[in-house]
Amino acid sequence: LPLAPIDADAIAEHCQIVFLTLPDGEAQTLVPTLRERQLKVIDLSADYRFSSLERYQSYYEGDRSDYDLLSQVVYGLPELYRSAISRSSLVGCAGSYPTASLLAIAPLIKQGLVQPESLIIDAKCGTSVGGNQPKPHLLYVEAADSIAPYSVTRHRHTPEIEQICSDLAGHDIVVQFIPHRVPVVRGLLSTVYANMRDPGLVREDLLTIYSAFYRNSPWIRVLSNGLCPQTRWAMGSNLCYLGIEVDPRTGRVVVMAAIDNLMKGAVGQAVQCCNIMMGWDERLGLPSKSLYP
Amino acid sequence: LPLAPIDADAIAEHCQIVFLTLPDGEAQTLVPTLRERQLKVIDLSADYRFSSLERYQSYYEGDRSDYDLLSQVVYGLPELYRSAISRSSLVGCAGSYPTASLLAIAPLIKQGLVQPESLIIDAKCGTSVGGNQPKPHLLYVEAADSIAPYSVTRHRHTPEIEQICSDLAGHDIVVQFIPHRVPVVRGLLSTVYANMRDPGLVREDLLTIYSAFYRNSPWIRVLSNGLCPQTRWAMGSNLCYLGIEVDPRTGRVVVMAAIDNLMKGAVGQAVQCCNIMMGWDERLGLPSKSLYP
Amino acid sequence: LPLAPIDADAIAEHCQIVFLTLPDGEAQTLVPTLRERQLKVIDLSADYRFSSLERYQSYYEGDRSDYDLLSQVVYGLPELYRSAISRSSLVGCAGSYPTASLLAIAPLIKQGLVQPESLIIDAKCGTSVGGNQPKPHLLYVEAADSIAPYSVTRHRHTPEIEQICSDLAGHDIVVQFIPHRVPVVRGLLSTVYANMRDPGLVREDLLTIYSAFYRNSPWIRVLSNGLCPQTRWAMGSNLCYLGIEVDPRTGRVVVMAAIDNLMKGAVGQAVQCCNIMMGWDERLGLPSKSLYP
Amino acid sequence: LPLAPIDADAIAEHCQIVFLTLPDGEAQTLVPTLRERQLKVIDLSADYRFSSLERYQSYYEGDRSDYDLLSQVVYGLPELYRSAISRSSLVGCAGSYPTASLLAIAPLIKQGLVQPESLIIDAKCGTSVGGNQPKPHLLYVEAADSIAPYSVTRHRHTPEIEQICSDLAGHDIVVQFIPHRVPVVRGLLSTVYANMRDPGLVREDLLTIYSAFYRNSPWIRVLSNGLCPQTRWAMGSNLCYLGIEVDPRTGRVVVMAAIDNLMKGAVGQAVQCCNIMMGWDERLGLPSKSLYP
Repeated sequence: LPLAPIDADAIAEHCQIVFLTLPDGEAQTLVPTLRERQLKVIDLSADYRFSSLERYQSYYEGDRSDYDLLSQVVYGLPELYRSAISRSSLVGCAGSYPTASLLAIAPLIKQGLVQPESLIIDAKCGTSVGGNQPKPHLLYVEAADSIAPYSVTRHRHTPEIEQICSDLAGHDIVVQFIPHRVPVVRGLLSTVYANMRDPGLVREDLLTIYSAFYRNSPWIRVLSNGLCPQTRWAMGSNLCYLGIEVDPRTGRVVVMAAIDNLMKGAVGQAVQCCNIMMGWDERLGLPSKSLYP
Repeated sequence: LPLAPIDADAIAEHCQIVFLTLPDGEAQTLVPTLRERQLKVIDLSADYRFSSLERYQSYYEGDRSDYDLLSQVVYGLPELYRSAISRSSLVGCAGSYPTASLLAIAPLIKQGLVQPESLIIDAKCGTSVGGNQPKPHLLYVEAADSIAPYSVTRHRHTPEIEQICSDLAGHDIVVQFIPHRVPVVRGLLSTVYANMRDPGLVREDLLTIYSAFYRNSPWIRVLSNGLCPQTRWAMGSNLCYLGIEVDPRTGRVVVMAAIDNLMKGAVGQAVQCCNIMMGWDERLGLPSKSLYP
Repeated sequence: LPLAPIDADAIAEHCQIVFLTLPDGEAQTLVPTLRERQLKVIDLSADYRFSSLERYQSYYEGDRSDYDLLSQVVYGLPELYRSAISRSSLVGCAGSYPTASLLAIAPLIKQGLVQPESLIIDAKCGTSVGGNQPKPHLLYVEAADSIAPYSVTRHRHTPEIEQICSDLAGHDIVVQFIPHRVPVVRGLLSTVYANMRDPGLVREDLLTIYSAFYRNSPWIRVLSNGLCPQTRWAMGSNLCYLGIEVDPRTGRVVVMAAIDNLMKGAVGQAVQCCNIMMGWDERLGLPSKSLYP
Repeated sequence: LPLAPIDADAIAEHCQIVFLTLPDGEAQTLVPTLRERQLKVIDLSADYRFSSLERYQSYYEGDRSDYDLLSQVVYGLPELYRSAISRSSLVGCAGSYPTASLLAIAPLIKQGLVQPESLIIDAKCGTSVGGNQPKPHLLYVEAADSIAPYSVTRHRHTPEIEQICSDLAGHDIVVQFIPHRVPVVRGLLSTVYANMRDPGLVREDLLTIYSAFYRNSPWIRVLSNGLCPQTRWAMGSNLCYLGIEVDPRTGRVVVMAAIDNLMKGAVGQAVQCCNIMMGWDERLGLPSKSLYP
């Protein structure tokens, strides 16, 4: 693949759709030009994940002048917004933590099964979540041999998760989200805790609800029989594994979501969005076999 | 150190105190004989962690005939039971998950700062938590490259944590405890979530309370300034690092406790208990420097 | 795929070719029956890697009664025996260490470039080389954090490497082979040292020779420009990367071969052999993209 | 420990000996000033490892003006230069690869047991060998899951090894040295191959020679019975484990040396040198227990 300077006219002449993987804050300087030329855009940064400027600016710095585009944005998590994505020309792909977390949470909120204010997301991810910039804490000598919480109570994926939870619920929801870095290259697990409204529900009830919710989602695997998902099962694939447990002693449901953060949590999801925007099978070009099937 | 068959009379002739590191269920066949000979006993298995036979039997199988000894048992977590340990002759050392979890939780319950029924413990540990028996899921080829929740809602350390929380609170407490296995050899992190009774508390309040609570505990390091503990800081030492965060948006406190599960979570704690039982400085013979200071 | 008891007649009715992945010593009890029924056989154990019974028995124990079959055996390393494999009905797939080592060595011997008695193979492999049996030294707690030589001067892959080197040279060759276990799941690197007959050769000469030697081998990547192969480049694929260096100070050539021992060093190679035996494209069904391309 | 600007006069007033851990090329600008004030100096960089300016400049760049100091330099590998170190005021500590490699090689050369031109050193080390600078190839996402040879035939530790081998032999020796990076934090293994002059020697002969050679070296452990050293045995300690094997088939001796490159290969060795320069017990202040004893 040859590299070339960015020339919007040349792109418009040869392409229908553009993938952007720029640092946060950069896409917004380029997308208006691309959209003027009717190019469809899939952005992997945080720039177009928010429909509310206020929510965006509460966690991200810098002025921006493309306010009007925000109203066109569709959130790039196909299992929740498949139909809107298929009609959209500007998709801001979901971040890695929000992808796993929201896939675990969505049926709970959508079906009104839990008390939203009780939602706690304890997430764990490999070091690739920090990108491949040579930062000291991402060195092998620093990241190996350790389990490290970080950005406790103030991680930038929090507003993204809250935006979608609020959208699904129809009212504002605040969640507790805490990420931890562990020594794997790729792999992300979100463990979600919530108090059930009806403490009489059992695991089979939840399994039925989740299976129905994701019936048309080829990349979701709902695990039955109390199996817990491991991140390695998804490694190298675009799959998301969901494990569901109900604790009658506490009245809580615990949902675990495992993905490969570099696939379903990043480029895999972008390709999946592209397939949907172009009217293709959403499995096209994406690996369904993990390295450890 | 020469190995020899177990002969209680010979032990009684030469020793004052005995450490037992037998599989669960084995110590209870030996301890009565040792106690008859006035030997002090420090047991590292689950056999003497419970004062209630009922609680023990709800998670552990098998009959036992040493009921009367349970009333003499002191729980071997020195920071919470130092005085009782100093007068005891039979100590059941705290398990690794309960050690980190209870050190994080104790000040919250003891000071009545949180709603007990809101307690959630999301724990992560290296593979040594499973011992060194050659089991398939503990192989390098299985445990590397993965983040794996297990024993969700039914791990055997749950009743142990609940017993001590209940003792501290003065009434029965049920907790949510979920462990995860991650690819490190040693290292255990407990992330504890709880709803504060008084949502006006700030981090500095909590830091003051924790610092006072652990003032006389040489192995506890309360981190100030919003630092999050990493397990590698404790690696090879008997230290426990505590990080405390308050989230005003959710009204929750989040406490993170990091230990080396093979030291403070196992033999280090046993030696610390021994020091206290013998009237020695509780730092004696224990490493205070980690491999990554 | 349903499991069924082994029934040679039933297999013969439905299959043309059989893959065997049994423990060493087991295939030889089954293969005679399969061959009687004209089934083609691809064996992944050590049972059919040797054409000389004497060489086999010098490293492997136990009597065997299928001597006559050994004369039909073809060594399953397609890059060296493609033509013989295509005509064979009984292939004993090359072991993982021999695969990488022989792909590095073959052009040197075949072209008479080095002194055979100077050959030294220093190999490094992940823990999957030991299989997935739950043995203590393969536990995460034992294998992590360490670099461990083993079976020094007496590893069972030595006679296999020597058999093929001798076959290529036309006379008996003895090699030094020493394996080391390192903490990766999959990945094998052989570093081969040899004294050049003509100390005037430079790297470009060797590159030309290797490129020509492997011109028709789609799974071999000869690296130019002094690049050193890393095992992760092959991870998940059937590729073998070869790096070549000449040291004018010592008169030695150093060749490094990197493979995924579970693919090119095991099942990938078996499928490649099958493709050749069946007259198909030898790339069929095999992954050419690694997880870290 | 308070940090302060470097003030040679202030240092001379309070100190007898100075440890320098500066980047290569920096110590040489400071040492002349320190030596003028009669301060003893232990340098951990490459600046004072060479007595020959020519050898130094063949691998390191930049002019230097402290030529005269090179004649005073003693190579900081106590097991080989203990007596000279005890009388020296300027010690250039051995690098990590040379430390393990030379401890494996020295008895062979000193006793004339091998053909020097046959020496091959295949070394493996954790990523800390590259320091803690945030360089891309030292990131967790790059260094994990891989076995990676590097600087083949041109690593800067080559002239250092050759200088000492030549000194021990009394004539110039050229060696083959090839390092590999593997995914551990700390740990270094050198596997040394050499052709024996007398092919009749057996392992017991070598063990006797090595044991005698290191009789007065408290940090060396010569393994008997064909045990192979693992790097984890040395982890966290100043120990060097030596394993010795003789291969009667090839007439070679294979010696394996395992150290913790951050201890015996770096600061541990510096402290050991200090102890000797000050006339103290060379074990003073150094850990003899590894994390995995």
